[in-house]
Amino acid sequence: MELAFTLICSVAGLWFAVYLAKWVLRNDEGTKEMQNISNAIREGAEAFLARQYKTIAALTIPVAVVLYLLYALRQSSGQEHISPSQLALYVAGSFILGAICSGIAGYIGMWVAIRANIRTAAASRSSLNLGLQIALRGGAVSGLFVVVMSLLGVGGLFTLLRLLHIPAQQIPFLIVGYGFGASFVALFAQLGGGIYTKAADVGADLVGKVEAGIPEDDPRNPAVIADLVGDNVGDCAGRGADLFESTAAENIGAMILGVALFPYFGLQGVLFPLVVRAFGVLASMAGIWVVRTEEDGDPMQALNKGYYLTTLLAAIGFGIGCWWLLRSQDAPHAWFNFWMCGLIGLATAMAFVYITQYYTEYKYRPVRSIAEASQTGPATNIIAGMAVGMESTALPVIVIAVAIIASYALGRSSGVVIGDSTVGAGLFGTAVATMGMLGTAAYVLAMDTFGPIADNAGGIIEMSQQPEEIRRKTDRLDAVGNTTKALTKGYAIGSAALAAFLLFAAYLDEVAHYMGKPLEAVNLAKPEVFVGGLLGAMLVFLFAVMAVRAVGTAAGYVIDEVRRQFREHPGILQGTEQPSYRQCVDIVTAGALKQMILPGLLIIVMPIVVGLIFKQLGIGAEVVAAFLMVGTIAGILMATVLNNSGGAWDNAKKYIETGALGGKGSETHKAAVVGDTVGDPFKDTAGPSLHVVIKLLSTITLVLAPLFL
Amino acid sequence: MELAFTLICSVAGLWFAVYLAKWVLRNDEGTKEMQNISNAIREGAEAFLARQYKTIAALTIPVAVVLYLLYALRQSSGQEHISPSQLALYVAGSFILGAICSGIAGYIGMWVAIRANIRTAAASRSSLNLGLQIALRGGAVSGLFVVVMSLLGVGGLFTLLRLLHIPAQQIPFLIVGYGFGASFVALFAQLGGGIYTKAADVGADLVGKVEAGIPEDDPRNPAVIADLVGDNVGDCAGRGADLFESTAAENIGAMILGVALFPYFGLQGVLFPLVVRAFGVLASMAGIWVVRTEEDGDPMQALNKGYYLTTLLAAIGFGIGCWWLLRSQDAPHAWFNFWMCGLIGLATAMAFVYITQYYTEYKYRPVRSIAEASQTGPATNIIAGMAVGMESTALPVIVIAVAIIASYALGRSSGVVIGDSTVGAGLFGTAVATMGMLGTAAYVLAMDTFGPIADNAGGIIEMSQQPEEIRRKTDRLDAVGNTTKALTKGYAIGSAALAAFLLFAAYLDEVAHYMGKPLEAVNLAKPEVFVGGLLGAMLVFLFAVMAVRAVGTAAGYVIDEVRRQFREHPGILQGTEQPSYRQCVDIVTAGALKQMILPGLLIIVMPIVVGLIFKQLGIGAEVVAAFLMVGTIAGILMATVLNNSGGAWDNAKKYIETGALGGKGSETHKAAVVGDTVGDPFKDTAGPSLHVVIKLLSTITLVLAPLFL
Repeated sequence: MELAFTLICSVAGLWFAVYLAKWVLRNDEGTKEMQNISNAIREGAEAFLARQYKTIAALTIPVAVVLYLLYALRQSSGQEHISPSQLALYVAGSFILGAICSGIAGYIGMWVAIRANIRTAAASRSSLNLGLQIALRGGAVSGLFVVVMSLLGVGGLFTLLRLLHIPAQQIPFLIVGYGFGASFVALFAQLGGGIYTKAADVGADLVGKVEAGIPEDDPRNPAVIADLVGDNVGDCAGRGADLFESTAAENIGAMILGVALFPYFGLQGVLFPLVVRAFGVLASMAGIWVVRTEEDGDPMQALNKGYYLTTLLAAIGFGIGCWWLLRSQDAPHAWFNFWMCGLIGLATAMAFVYITQYYTEYKYRPVRSIAEASQTGPATNIIAGMAVGMESTALPVIVIAVAIIASYALGRSSGVVIGDSTVGAGLFGTAVATMGMLGTAAYVLAMDTFGPIADNAGGIIEMSQQPEEIRRKTDRLDAVGNTTKALTKGYAIGSAALAAFLLFAAYLDEVAHYMGKPLEAVNLAKPEVFVGGLLGAMLVFLFAVMAVRAVGTAAGYVIDEVRRQFREHPGILQGTEQPSYRQCVDIVTAGALKQMILPGLLIIVMPIVVGLIFKQLGIGAEVVAAFLMVGTIAGILMATVLNNSGGAWDNAKKYIETGALGGKGSETHKAAVVGDTVGDPFKDTAGPSLHVVIKLLSTITLVLAPLFL
Repeated sequence: MELAFTLICSVAGLWFAVYLAKWVLRNDEGTKEMQNISNAIREGAEAFLARQYKTIAALTIPVAVVLYLLYALRQSSGQEHISPSQLALYVAGSFILGAICSGIAGYIGMWVAIRANIRTAAASRSSLNLGLQIALRGGAVSGLFVVVMSLLGVGGLFTLLRLLHIPAQQIPFLIVGYGFGASFVALFAQLGGGIYTKAADVGADLVGKVEAGIPEDDPRNPAVIADLVGDNVGDCAGRGADLFESTAAENIGAMILGVALFPYFGLQGVLFPLVVRAFGVLASMAGIWVVRTEEDGDPMQALNKGYYLTTLLAAIGFGIGCWWLLRSQDAPHAWFNFWMCGLIGLATAMAFVYITQYYTEYKYRPVRSIAEASQTGPATNIIAGMAVGMESTALPVIVIAVAIIASYALGRSSGVVIGDSTVGAGLFGTAVATMGMLGTAAYVLAMDTFGPIADNAGGIIEMSQQPEEIRRKTDRLDAVGNTTKALTKGYAIGSAALAAFLLFAAYLDEVAHYMGKPLEAVNLAKPEVFVGGLLGAMLVFLFAVMAVRAVGTAAGYVIDEVRRQFREHPGILQGTEQPSYRQCVDIVTAGALKQMILPGLLIIVMPIVVGLIFKQLGIGAEVVAAFLMVGTIAGILMATVLNNSGGAWDNAKKYIETGALGGKGSETHKAAVVGDTVGDPFKDTAGPSLHVVIKLLSTITLVLAPLFL
């Protein structure tokens, strides 16, 4: 029944996504000139994704083999009901499935986005509303696919293993590989895409704008197409894989915790995460459907209206789900408590959206303070931006703290008592809050993908030299897109933080499962455990710097290539010769893929090394737990700093470009450009990759836990 | 016997310090012109310190009263052997004593430094060696005083309480207030001094160099004296208080751990920390004595020679101390194991010195990479500097990890077993490593104070317009001073990190003492504890940003004042009118003191708020422990990033000024100046203040632990 409902909702979501995709594709494709540009973007994006997936596959297959061998060759503790080789098969198999699903989710999102951009551009020539709708609905295809895929993946695996007569309580332990597979691909997708987009952006700007003195998005710049491609591969495919991973990991984590409450809710508690996610899909469909704007209206308000409706419907759906599945005679008001936990999650999502807006929009004090600091030069601009980024960690941390403590307390007082303890119910409460936070995931992801579509539409209008009034329309959409992109990052961090806590609990559960006795504590007062925490925090710093440097190195390749084209073909700058966009695209593709390997491997290898070293000291599992938890804390803070300082610098520059404090071309503007350039790899490469890292640390330790014992 | 030895060494250290001070004062004071400048610096520094101490006193007294009341009014758990009001008296009394001692240590260091600067300048006119010796010996007065004061303070308190017939095992719990008092004053001394020095520096540069176009250290600049004063109050008084606090806190923490080993070593184990510290004083005296250089030699090599000798003698002294005090028939090789722990500490200190040099000197790749990145503008300069700062966390973390694990393992295998457990001995091992690291503290502090003395000497030579060849000599000393200042910061972080771990253990001991049963674990897997960790890390980010912003605000006051003087007295710039240095000094004094309050209070108030809130949930002590530990981890990493990126930016600029990559005045140089300006408040305000914060978090939780139960 529950599985059937989940399946029906999933199919409905997919059907709606296909409907939206067809609706988008039915729209006008604009002039021949516009199509040429759009085709070049499409080719570039597809070429990158094809090569990126090849690289990722080359990394995935050995990992799968190693996973299989590690599980197959380890000694069974006698606690499991299946043989090591069978377990190995399930883990490695679900790893590959997770990787494939994540890849598909990213690909489909981008497939629609690179077709929606030209249609948004074309539509903007006549109607702002139509432009808005095409961009949002194009984005929604990605959002729905991502969420439904993670639902179908986890639900399908569950059903499959049930058909193989494996007890429900065992199943989550068999499919932890799925989450690892998803986060593995997400890491490289986000990292590779993030490096690509910023390397192209920085390269195009430095040689084009600064050296040759031609405007942004000028067709004479050989790197301009690579720049537009970057928006798609970084923001669409990258963030899609990121949120796919969040929802998948959260599903599995919550199911593991649901298993602990079996005596009360039976199988229903285990399936609850799938059902409420299904309700979330329905809510997002409604939210996407109602978005429309007047020609002179504020597109952001229209998007917000859809978001509020989605949140409201998700809240109701949550209530129904709790009433349906989490009622027990022994704990009559448990369903209500857990519903409240869900509402806490939805409220947390909203709080993150507001906080991110406050720190990154130029309506508010923080961005204004950066703009004002730019008046005394680049140094004060940089200090002000760093300060805003660091300050912006405070409120999110407090919100997360309140959400965790409150949902934990609600869970504990739900009346569910397992073996004299209410801890399991408390943890399930935090899990439900995470589900609440991710309830609106499909809609939020649609808003996110809206960003690069609108950005591309603006680029196409610019490059095809359309009249000023049309540009102004796409500029409005583009500005809204920048805001939604920033919001999604805040949302992604918040959900990663909540999901991480859930995954810690799952990790400890798993360790208990394999050891046959619980890991009593992750005791930071032990020297080894403290060192584990120290190393976890250090990993975050090291990864961030490697990601930022990778952008610099890859940008160097682009700069060399653009300079070469200008030098060898002087006709390009005079407008008499066509630059080779494809060569630039190829070079940045190769560069980004090469540069993503090292930071990516660091994240995979370091937890393993730490685990294996401290296993020798007999304390592997606990040290890895501290590594994971303190690393997560550092990751949440660092990602917040990087995203928000980057976003704030960007908008401080945009604020000055509206004519404030001297406007474009002034010394103040030049200083603001410095901050914007510094912030680019922060907010679009290192920050978003850290979201994935936070979760990857959890899933990798979940999968490898048996090794560290 | 042990106390007598400690006392004799202390007196010897004090005598030597007085001798050095007299020796310094005997030297020539240079021309009348030089004296005028020096007098202005002295007056400014003394005025600042007087007002700063008044402000700190106004903060200290209420805290002492509150401490007294909190302890006096709490219900006794019945575990203590003395009444609450007596305990309250000891804690509040030792708090005030710690605060006073810290103040005296800072004052005396500065007293000599502001008299050594003119003599160093005068001596440099004839002999590089004499200049070097005056600057180092002037610094040594501060170094010796600081270490001896902390020794006498802790030793004296111990003796006093013994005379009052209080059992030795109880004493450390009664004098935890001493460490808190010391760190309380250190926080405000370092923060206020750090804000002062950078506000004056930035203010002087922005209006003088950039707006009016006059050179650095030009006597026409009204802020130039304030700038020179800043070096003394920030680096001398601030760092003095910082290291005073390290040694005091470490002494007490180690004594608490020594109590745990009472069955083996008796009172000797408790006194061991004092004795090895006394050996360290002797070693430092020898090291300071041997430093001398040829006229064309490298002053840095001379300083290094002294450092190596100090390290060698400290290592031997350590061996004697272990052999003397840590022998037990039940654990015959324990003394050897603990000696090895001490050597690990000495090696850790050396490793930190080398790593800091690698990341901040322009001989090596990191600084060069920043200089090269400056060729493409300020944005790439900033990114490269941030990258170096973040990368530079990796090696120190690994060194600390190895030091903690190895000394812990050595302690556990020492043969000392308390109640079936070797954990106490293991923790004592880490404590001994910390003692080792701090064994060379007096010498290192002498090198540190050498920095501002040499810097001031350079300023005096510059302002009194001495010939070029003399300037070149003081420039060489100044360059060495910059290096030693950077090294000391690395050393201060390393020792803070090791001492912090020691203080965690002391905190848990203390909680056990008051609860009557041990706090089993600091379990990060509990939601409340995880939240505590999250809040601790957040505090570090928030504090850093407040410290950096305070500099900006205070610099604003200076800028306004300098502009006013130039405007109202046009004669100043023409050289016909004397600027009012004093007014600038007054303004930056008032500004720095005002701006230090808010960040300082944040650090004091937040642990208390967290403890009291979670006390309501019945889990206060454990949450505070996580708050402290994760906050410490974040603090270590953040301080490393801030210090090293700041130092690297500074030296990248200096490297370019040697003529590399276009030299002074080029676009590359301009870009490098941006990084240098950004790094200034990082490395001289926020970073060094974080060293103190790391330890203050420990001491405040130690003192307030009884409240959170």
